[in-house]
Amino acid sequence: MDKNVLRNLSYGVYVISAPDGDRSVGCIANSAMQVSSKPATIAVSINHDNYTNGCIAKGGRFVLAVLSEESDRGIIGTFGFQSSKDTDKFAAVEAVDAGGIKTVADCVGYVICRVADTMESSTHTVFLGEVEDAVMLKGGTPMTYAYYHNVIKGKSPKNAPTYVEEEQPKPSGSKKFVCTVCGYVYEGDELPADFKCPICGQGADKFKEV
Amino acid sequence: MDKNVLRNLSYGVYVISAPDGDRSVGCIANSAMQVSSKPATIAVSINHDNYTNGCIAKGGRFVLAVLSEESDRGIIGTFGFQSSKDTDKFAAVEAVDAGGIKTVADCVGYVICRVADTMESSTHTVFLGEVEDAVMLKGGTPMTYAYYHNVIKGKSPKNAPTYVEEEQPKPSGSKKFVCTVCGYVYEGDELPADFKCPICGQGADKFKEV
Repeated sequence: MDKNVLRNLSYGVYVISAPDGDRSVGCIANSAMQVSSKPATIAVSINHDNYTNGCIAKGGRFVLAVLSEESDRGIIGTFGFQSSKDTDKFAAVEAVDAGGIKTVADCVGYVICRVADTMESSTHTVFLGEVEDAVMLKGGTPMTYAYYHNVIKGKSPKNAPTYVEEEQPKPSGSKKFVCTVCGYVYEGDELPADFKCPICGQGADKFKEV
Repeated sequence: MDKNVLRNLSYGVYVISAPDGDRSVGCIANSAMQVSSKPATIAVSINHDNYTNGCIAKGGRFVLAVLSEESDRGIIGTFGFQSSKDTDKFAAVEAVDAGGIKTVADCVGYVICRVADTMESSTHTVFLGEVEDAVMLKGGTPMTYAYYHNVIKGKSPKNAPTYVEEEQPKPSGSKKFVCTVCGYVYEGDELPADFKCPICGQGADKFKEV
């Protein structure tokens, strides 16, 4: 079996958020798709280990925000490589209210969904959401996962359906420095002291040589 | 509600095929995504009205082929704008055997799936397929739905989750000729007699002025 074929499916990059008591939580997802148009429904795959999964299940609603190529890359670092369990991710970004759930302001637009059905796999839940409302914010070119991977050189978080172990850095002849927050790898003789991670915005102190 | 937001979700372009007695049938799908990685599963949304839907349900298996930007555009015309009920679509293309089901040879690669679960919406079934095998064929750049829509100027078939009525041609000052097979619209003073549809390869006789 050549699992590389699976890397050729195309995706966008989304922030999925949900209510958690008085606050909102969220994570990054690639695996999202429209299922039907009348009524409009969207399916999204969320890892069981993502704190957001339980909040969608409990609250019965979620918001999908479409990131654009121009969206602040710190959003991916914050929402993709930290856990909402011990972080208020929305404190780190500009947030807007989407029907009582927070979402990110710096996106193409967002869709508010009510959970209509779920389907389980060994590691992920597929939530089928019926669209309650959809609001265009900044527009722009939607970020594809290929753009994130090939242009921004981003990695898959460990909980992503598209995660593959081979993506992890392998030390070779040249020096490599990995961002301990998001996994971005810088290659070179040394890491500049004022270097900032292009994915999550962390400084050089969060990098370690591998 | 601004449904245009939904047009900003990103997709690939796939041929989904299934067994139908001694033959194979298939259709085009955009809404497909990986759900989990261990074991690898894929979800795909297929309209109830697509003949292929019932064949996947009955046979319990399907093949997803990833089209590339270089794939023959006639594949989309054949598989996206005709019905397998009354057409042997695989007679019109170069086909390969994928574990007993035919798929198209002119693609990045294909994935063979066994149906593990299903989820229903009003118009579409989401099939969750556990990956049995995956084979790389021609490689290349996977075709995204945005590429199909913006570069090839293709339309959504009526059964697609992403179909919107506004996509249909609206007559204006200039003349428009629509392909009656796939919906492609040619604009100009007149349609050249030797014109061939860039989507489905049909000749000028299949076009009518709108």
